Amino acid sequence: MHPYRTHSCAALRAADAGQTARLSGWVHSKRDHGGLLFIDLRDHFGMTQIVIPAGSPVLETAERVRVESVLTVTGEVVLRDGATKNPNLPTGEIELRAREIEVQSSADVLPLQVAGNEHYPEDLRLTYRYIDLRREKVHLNIMLRAQVIASLRRRMTDLGFVEFQTPILTASSPEGARDFLVPARMHPGKFYALPQAPQQFKQLAMVAGFDRYFQIAPCFRDEAARADRSPGEFYQLDFEMAFATQEDVFATLEPVMEGVFREFGGGRIVSQAPFARIPYATAMDVYGSDKPDLRNPLQISDVTEAFAGSGFGLFARIAADGGQIRAIPAPGAGDRPRAFFDKLNNWARESGAGGLGYIIFAEDGGKGPIAKNLEADRIEAIRAKTGLKAGDAVFFVAGKGDEMVRFSGSVRTRVATELDLIEQNAFRFCWITDFPMYELNEETGQIDFSHNPFSMPQGGMEALQNQDPLTIKAFQYDIVCNGVELSSGAIRNHQPDVMIRAFEIAGYPASEVEARFGGMLNAFRYGAPPHGGSAPGVDRIVMLLADEPNIREVILFPLNQQGQDLMMGAPAPVEPQRLKELSLALDLPRPKPGQAKG
Amino acid sequence: MHPYRTHSCAALRAADAGQTARLSGWVHSKRDHGGLLFIDLRDHFGMTQIVIPAGSPVLETAERVRVESVLTVTGEVVLRDGATKNPNLPTGEIELRAREIEVQSSADVLPLQVAGNEHYPEDLRLTYRYIDLRREKVHLNIMLRAQVIASLRRRMTDLGFVEFQTPILTASSPEGARDFLVPARMHPGKFYALPQAPQQFKQLAMVAGFDRYFQIAPCFRDEAARADRSPGEFYQLDFEMAFATQEDVFATLEPVMEGVFREFGGGRIVSQAPFARIPYATAMDVYGSDKPDLRNPLQISDVTEAFAGSGFGLFARIAADGGQIRAIPAPGAGDRPRAFFDKLNNWARESGAGGLGYIIFAEDGGKGPIAKNLEADRIEAIRAKTGLKAGDAVFFVAGKGDEMVRFSGSVRTRVATELDLIEQNAFRFCWITDFPMYELNEETGQIDFSHNPFSMPQGGMEALQNQDPLTIKAFQYDIVCNGVELSSGAIRNHQPDVMIRAFEIAGYPASEVEARFGGMLNAFRYGAPPHGGSAPGVDRIVMLLADEPNIREVILFPLNQQGQDLMMGAPAPVEPQRLKELSLALDLPRPKPGQAKG
Repeated sequence: MHPYRTHSCAALRAADAGQTARLSGWVHSKRDHGGLLFIDLRDHFGMTQIVIPAGSPVLETAERVRVESVLTVTGEVVLRDGATKNPNLPTGEIELRAREIEVQSSADVLPLQVAGNEHYPEDLRLTYRYIDLRREKVHLNIMLRAQVIASLRRRMTDLGFVEFQTPILTASSPEGARDFLVPARMHPGKFYALPQAPQQFKQLAMVAGFDRYFQIAPCFRDEAARADRSPGEFYQLDFEMAFATQEDVFATLEPVMEGVFREFGGGRIVSQAPFARIPYATAMDVYGSDKPDLRNPLQISDVTEAFAGSGFGLFARIAADGGQIRAIPAPGAGDRPRAFFDKLNNWARESGAGGLGYIIFAEDGGKGPIAKNLEADRIEAIRAKTGLKAGDAVFFVAGKGDEMVRFSGSVRTRVATELDLIEQNAFRFCWITDFPMYELNEETGQIDFSHNPFSMPQGGMEALQNQDPLTIKAFQYDIVCNGVELSSGAIRNHQPDVMIRAFEIAGYPASEVEARFGGMLNAFRYGAPPHGGSAPGVDRIVMLLADEPNIREVILFPLNQQGQDLMMGAPAPVEPQRLKELSLALDLPRPKPGQAKG
Repeated sequence: MHPYRTHSCAALRAADAGQTARLSGWVHSKRDHGGLLFIDLRDHFGMTQIVIPAGSPVLETAERVRVESVLTVTGEVVLRDGATKNPNLPTGEIELRAREIEVQSSADVLPLQVAGNEHYPEDLRLTYRYIDLRREKVHLNIMLRAQVIASLRRRMTDLGFVEFQTPILTASSPEGARDFLVPARMHPGKFYALPQAPQQFKQLAMVAGFDRYFQIAPCFRDEAARADRSPGEFYQLDFEMAFATQEDVFATLEPVMEGVFREFGGGRIVSQAPFARIPYATAMDVYGSDKPDLRNPLQISDVTEAFAGSGFGLFARIAADGGQIRAIPAPGAGDRPRAFFDKLNNWARESGAGGLGYIIFAEDGGKGPIAKNLEADRIEAIRAKTGLKAGDAVFFVAGKGDEMVRFSGSVRTRVATELDLIEQNAFRFCWITDFPMYELNEETGQIDFSHNPFSMPQGGMEALQNQDPLTIKAFQYDIVCNGVELSSGAIRNHQPDVMIRAFEIAGYPASEVEARFGGMLNAFRYGAPPHGGSAPGVDRIVMLLADEPNIREVILFPLNQQGQDLMMGAPAPVEPQRLKELSLALDLPRPKPGQAKG
């Protein structure tokens, strides 16, 4: 007999009754029923009830061990009585009557309990992550993550993608976030950087003639943590395709995402490919956001015309000044009490807006402060434009510029949430396309890249030479699910002359482009294929599927929000000799006077 | 029609003749046959011949582009004449008659050629790795690597292992090699370390109740490069199993290794599982090595007795002094000229040995300098012990200690190589088992750990308390293929009291063990399963399969031997502001006086 187990703790069934079996696992719980001792023995696979009869020679051992001790139990598989069967447990028809018990590991008093659902501070959980991970929800989250990644790999492989490992000790990259640096001992004064993404390497793999690359790629950014972002490392499904158009990229990723979300979505609704393609400008107009949550049915309308020259002076002036008035529908809100509208108005003020005007549509026309000052035909024009009816209401956001547009998006989200209009149990995907290549920097009056300078401009060199830069779009796109941006991506600019011209427009002379991006430019001078790709965030995919807003719930051993590994004690001071080897010295910030006294 | 391709460059066949097709790829070669221009167009998948007829409007474009430019060619698929068919090319029955050619990317004059087999300096190849990778052998090596890794993953998954990502920004680990450090910006004066291996994390995953973990794990050691070791990062098939014995680990890994080597071995012979299990002591006796190459049929014998008190004074004195005389057989070497034996003797002297004595067995007894002074019955005893016959020879290594033993292993390798006895086209696996837990430090006279202090000693606490430490073996093992150590592994010590006692024997007080390894020890105090595993090196597996002695031939974008990425320019200086953010200052070594003058 195997020294540890003949079966897992999830394996035994009624048909095994009468057999001798050996199980190993953790003591999940112990219950004393008048001399009889019951132990729920748990392993990765499941749970089996162990019974130790009164008077058994192993009773003393069983009584002595604390929960979470690890035992090997040998005994007879016994059918449970009808009344004591547990239909909720796959092994619930039997129990193991212990004949021998070996204590493999004796547990001390635990800092946190595995059984039950008690809430513990995150730092305590992370300090004892090896105990925390035994708890059912987080154990399942980590298994889900592993299964999602395995499924992503399988799906990409089935599509002809090949996984390569790109370097982790590399050069600082132009992504723009802050790199982690690694001192190079053999090269005093020089540093490697950890990759923010394998962007340049995947493009170089295309230049090297590999056709379809992917990688479950570790990425590193030295940025502050957020709920949805780890402070150190994160993973993305990084992929790139040669000789591919934007539609090829979409058609490739869509079945992967749809497939994974169907496989692990637990029956939730998933968008069917092809996903909606929404141009950036439309997204900003209709959703007030470049990552719209399509579970929200509300669409924003432009009602500037209805207010231009109207009796509602505030909006009329904004319209006259070249501003815009946006209408956010609130279907069915007409019978909400005044407090509903006041609450939203207060929320808008707290968000930095002047307030949140509204009109209620009744059978006999518009109601509310704005309606009092607005001509009936104009109210009717707004109702018609927004597709609303009596019993509905509409909110307005007025002003100019990006901030106003994004606020209209916030109002859309808020109103739908208040009215409980957000579709439940659904994953709604879309692509946002046609991002502008450039934008006007309102402070400097100069033209800046608006997103990724390495994307191919639509229209190529001709557009760069003949078109108003602010009207040039890029072959750049985001994939969005439920309002979460999973990734941006692009068809890359693989032509050195187009790239130099594109940078020139943004004010960078060719010499600077060569100095900063010479590696890539050079590579493109020896035969580069058109190529493009994307890199959906793995952690975010798992967070969506696990319905966890905190990224640390889907990572095996995460850093805490302060970037510390409380379990292993990182980061930590190092011995002076180590720094000397690295040709470095500490240059610690001086304590501030107040601190020095304190 | 797709803007880039309707087919890959490996797809068209005779059956496609008459169709219009579009291909994209690199200009592999151009040949001008009296007005007709032929281009071999190459992509990741293969090659297709393009023909541009004399007088074609696209001829000028085709003539102008250099090799390695990227073209999109549209035209008619045409059957080749019988004589011009190329049976060596899957597309050799057809050619594409170009009607349109679009230049996607125009190549400059190349620093190294893709077609052909010209040899280039490694640093040139690595500087232009994106061109180098288009060359057939290295392209295939990288594809082999990807396929091997995918196969390893599939095999491990099929065995119920689950892949987890362990942290890359972590704490310094006790493996013993030098860590790479990463300054923690938010924690002035503190550092993360990159993992030398996920050793502690995989053990903690077992403590956390995950049953079978694996990972294609990036590992980092700040060590000098060797042919078979990258200077920075490398990958291992890291795995760990709960409730597993040493035999469970063997039985798990054997079919994975056998399977992968059969799958990618190209018909080479592969050891059948179960692989030979050779105790460490036996390996040193019989092969003079703990990583024996079993393709070498030679076995070493101990012939001390035959020389003890013999007429050959040198060996008799060594025997009398407690030394050992080892015999390395040289079957069939009897008819080799004197120069053969002299050459080996010179090699031995150059290797630091006194020389390499030998006896040639003839029909009428032993020949050679030693035989002259050795009694006939002793010569016969040696012949009988080594299983040799007339026409064979035997070499001797004499002395004491580890160095002598290892030199006997070198002689075994050298003799078999000279005699061409090493089996070709075979992968011979074995396990080396029963490594000693401790060894005597001959300088200090103290007892040291001989390998991994975290392995479980055979016999557990009882052995530690009652046995001579130098006789205690560990549940520790190596897997070896063709003389290459692919990995060590162990059943881990999961019992804090046993670990503290094991360290005590090696001179570490409990307080120091708690201080240095408190994290792991604490984890074992809250219920830890018996567990063990191994971590075969992925790069080494691919090197064996690709028959490449240089690790950089099987890595996509390797650092060079000086730890530099010549393509991306890493490591590199950073701006002073970056160092200030990290609370660091450079502390560069002063130039030596001679250098300052130079």
